Amino acid sequence: MDQVKVIKIKESVFADNDVQADRLRQELKKENTFLLNLMSSPGSGKTTTLLRTVEKLKDRLKIGIMEADIDSAVDAEIMAKKGVKTIQLHTGGMCHLDAGMTEQGLKELETGDLDLAILENVGNLVCPAEFDTGAVKNVMILSVPEGHDKPLKYPLIFQVCDVLLVNKIDVLDYFDFDMAKLKEYAWMRNPELKIFPISARTGEGIEAWTAWLYEAVLEWNRK
Amino acid sequence: MDQVKVIKIKESVFADNDVQADRLRQELKKENTFLLNLMSSPGSGKTTTLLRTVEKLKDRLKIGIMEADIDSAVDAEIMAKKGVKTIQLHTGGMCHLDAGMTEQGLKELETGDLDLAILENVGNLVCPAEFDTGAVKNVMILSVPEGHDKPLKYPLIFQVCDVLLVNKIDVLDYFDFDMAKLKEYAWMRNPELKIFPISARTGEGIEAWTAWLYEAVLEWNRK
Repeated sequence: MDQVKVIKIKESVFADNDVQADRLRQELKKENTFLLNLMSSPGSGKTTTLLRTVEKLKDRLKIGIMEADIDSAVDAEIMAKKGVKTIQLHTGGMCHLDAGMTEQGLKELETGDLDLAILENVGNLVCPAEFDTGAVKNVMILSVPEGHDKPLKYPLIFQVCDVLLVNKIDVLDYFDFDMAKLKEYAWMRNPELKIFPISARTGEGIEAWTAWLYEAVLEWNRK
Repeated sequence: MDQVKVIKIKESVFADNDVQADRLRQELKKENTFLLNLMSSPGSGKTTTLLRTVEKLKDRLKIGIMEADIDSAVDAEIMAKKGVKTIQLHTGGMCHLDAGMTEQGLKELETGDLDLAILENVGNLVCPAEFDTGAVKNVMILSVPEGHDKPLKYPLIFQVCDVLLVNKIDVLDYFDFDMAKLKEYAWMRNPELKIFPISARTGEGIEAWTAWLYEAVLEWNRK
């Protein structure tokens, strides 16, 4: 598993991304594959969170990961070393993935036998939020060092996400981070947002988050 | 100073941003105004670093700040409360500023009497790096919690910057951050990059960084 497949994805040819995203979701439904789109800033802990998530769920679900990066295969190599089915998507400088680009990745991942495919989107709070990737659920990570004011500054990503993981709570004591204010600002943007405080490093809070994800995957496959 | 002017900037109409950026730099040269473009991820400490920078230099230079944000005037209000000439630029969802957009901001800031105009770009390591704003120098902040592997993943921003400020060194003990590796990766992308480790919170390292900036402003005005 140490050799990671690196895919150079091309700019999407589809004019209407929303139509394309809906079509992709329908195809995934037929295959009983749940696609999760994970977004965050650079360095908020996407890869470590994914490792914890996969560790918790791998005995119950068949999982595949697409690591999207502008360059490098750092994250994909880390995932692959843990024995997770992983491919690296190179966006060639592009700051986001749309549905057409995601579909190119899914084809290479061969999702037929997967219950859960996870897209680790490009590290960016702005552009990825603007494009429906075809995912069933959108999840974002905000880490404690980034500050509790981010829903005020980056509204769209909080609006389009179903879940907010507040990562790095193990360093809460060292930062001026107000969890109550974060929740207030985040729910102002999106009253339906589920919020799970976690520490991908220590494992705290991972149980509650993965329980939610497991239920969501089961529900999608029951529908 | 508590009332902050909020400017909605429009998408640029110029086809060739590089030409536009060079023209803007020439105009700033005539006015003896040095434009600094500050880029980073969300939450790396741009605003706190700016406050420290202005504090150090405000008796020697006339400084004006443009805070670019998708929404909110959080940062501009903080700056204005400290008595710094500040305007807020709203990008209307856009993930970066180009030269035309920057010029709209400079007009509102009224740079005629300023030695140093600072653009706090949108929090994003990807898109802002692709557009020359017309700045004399480009500076980026990477904070310790973001990790030392970022030059591998976001090559372009390290290539286009003159200075890298490594912020939040006061929390180095709480993160798996390898400063030697960061420098190695950053210099791999750009051997000319100046690197200053700082803590905007404690003030550590601010002297060296502001000394560099002061010299750069003097040099621009001497040329």
